[in-house]
Amino acid sequence: MQLITVGTVAFDRIETPFGIAEKTVGGAATYISLAASVFLDKMGLVSVVGDDFPEGVMQQLRDRGVDLEGLEVMAGKESFFWAGRYHYDMNTRDTLETRLNVLLDLDPQLPEDYKQAPYVMLGNLDPKVQAKVLDQMEERPALVVMDTMNFWMDSAMEDLLKVIQRVDILAINDAEARQLSGEHSLVRAAGKILAMGPKYLVIKKGEHGALLFSKDRVFFAPALPLEDVVDPTGAGDTFAGGFIGFLARSQDHSFDNLKRAIIVGSALASFCCEKFGIERLLEIDKVDIDQRIQDFVELVDFDIELVES
Amino acid sequence: MQLITVGTVAFDRIETPFGIAEKTVGGAATYISLAASVFLDKMGLVSVVGDDFPEGVMQQLRDRGVDLEGLEVMAGKESFFWAGRYHYDMNTRDTLETRLNVLLDLDPQLPEDYKQAPYVMLGNLDPKVQAKVLDQMEERPALVVMDTMNFWMDSAMEDLLKVIQRVDILAINDAEARQLSGEHSLVRAAGKILAMGPKYLVIKKGEHGALLFSKDRVFFAPALPLEDVVDPTGAGDTFAGGFIGFLARSQDHSFDNLKRAIIVGSALASFCCEKFGIERLLEIDKVDIDQRIQDFVELVDFDIELVES
Repeated sequence: MQLITVGTVAFDRIETPFGIAEKTVGGAATYISLAASVFLDKMGLVSVVGDDFPEGVMQQLRDRGVDLEGLEVMAGKESFFWAGRYHYDMNTRDTLETRLNVLLDLDPQLPEDYKQAPYVMLGNLDPKVQAKVLDQMEERPALVVMDTMNFWMDSAMEDLLKVIQRVDILAINDAEARQLSGEHSLVRAAGKILAMGPKYLVIKKGEHGALLFSKDRVFFAPALPLEDVVDPTGAGDTFAGGFIGFLARSQDHSFDNLKRAIIVGSALASFCCEKFGIERLLEIDKVDIDQRIQDFVELVDFDIELVES
Repeated sequence: MQLITVGTVAFDRIETPFGIAEKTVGGAATYISLAASVFLDKMGLVSVVGDDFPEGVMQQLRDRGVDLEGLEVMAGKESFFWAGRYHYDMNTRDTLETRLNVLLDLDPQLPEDYKQAPYVMLGNLDPKVQAKVLDQMEERPALVVMDTMNFWMDSAMEDLLKVIQRVDILAINDAEARQLSGEHSLVRAAGKILAMGPKYLVIKKGEHGALLFSKDRVFFAPALPLEDVVDPTGAGDTFAGGFIGFLARSQDHSFDNLKRAIIVGSALASFCCEKFGIERLLEIDKVDIDQRIQDFVELVDFDIELVES
């Protein structure tokens, strides 16, 4: 395996001011794996679903190189379900319903050939579950990227901090970075979070782009301004999947290559928003992605002489 | 005159979660002129103050090349006063009090040597006043940049649209662009607003940067992530002043040069936020500005090969 991902595989019900998707396939690990599959052809997915989960989608994942030996299918049970409603700004949302279902029983057991994977993506989940995945690795992976959310900061901070200490890159949103650090300034927040263990921090700001911090450097990538945002669900996970997939292919963890990975992740996330659920991710090919990367290059490109000169 | 600016010159009372400035000099035309003075040495300011306005500040403006023949001082009256309180996020604020005072009597009469100015900045004001300034120009200026706000969209849309039709560049914030166009998507908003007359649209997004749109191109510049934001008051006007000042010096209105002007404006705005009111703008020199422009270059710089290659 080049990469293993632990995270939710789920059904979502999504309401936006512009449309509704009644029951669409979602989940962090689904988005992450699909995005990473642009760059990789041997990935493992660690999660759990009920026997209501469509075999067709599992086959689409397999077709893209995602091994599902790590995906437990629980007979007679239902998959994790999330329902949310986006506000008019499409940047904020309310959770209407969460049915954990099989997620309550998620006790990850890594297949043998997952245990040497050099790249590990810990999707947003109970930090105890994230830790359990790391515990089963036979040696320290080359790179571990982790996502989390405010819920775990409120309810399981101690466990959360233990996992954060063990990862190379934490990728969270701006509100989460502020909560985790207790600092409003993202520059100060980054300083505090990097002191917790990770070598790099990625702060995802949705339609406002993403920041990458190391101890002494910072990089910013915008989100591509889109004509229509149909559904932002999964954009953050798609970003993370593109990010770690690109790194796993290049096996280069320099700051300059992390910057490229941020651009690639942003490009993939922009596609994700164009249709409901995973639909758009299943359509795009490398030519589409290259065109969008070129859009990013043009979006931020400038040359300038200094004022004094 | 290289540039004339019409806009408020005022006193502000500013509350932030981190401090209070009881009575500090502010106003759009003040910030715009100070920022433009980095690039220009012969500017005119069109506004009105009461005789309570400090001569010391007027002298600081004159020292920087801002001619004040167009600034009417009304005896026995008080200057425009605004009081506002910033929320914890420092990106949103409530207006606590507005005392128009002399602003009610603002009836701009341009001094003779203002009437041939090639660059005109219309700061946020009643669109009737903005129009009156344009009416007095002896010939069409080389470039007119305009700011406005939601208040005029609510109360004077017809007058506003007439002025928008006459300017080259409209520079407003994202909420204003959405309100003016009736479109949530900034890409769609830009399309509609450019159809109203301006050749370019600048959308200021505060801590989230700025976008520049022409009919077929788009450019994005981030805001510099700051360790501490002390007071964002005037940052948008400082941006506009740096933007038009840079353009007036280079006399190049190509898209590529507008991109540079956006970066320069963003650099100046970042300084503005570091202290209350105009304080920081009075301290910085060209070396500071060049250092900050270099920070912007590094912040967004990346090189990438395409996925297919």
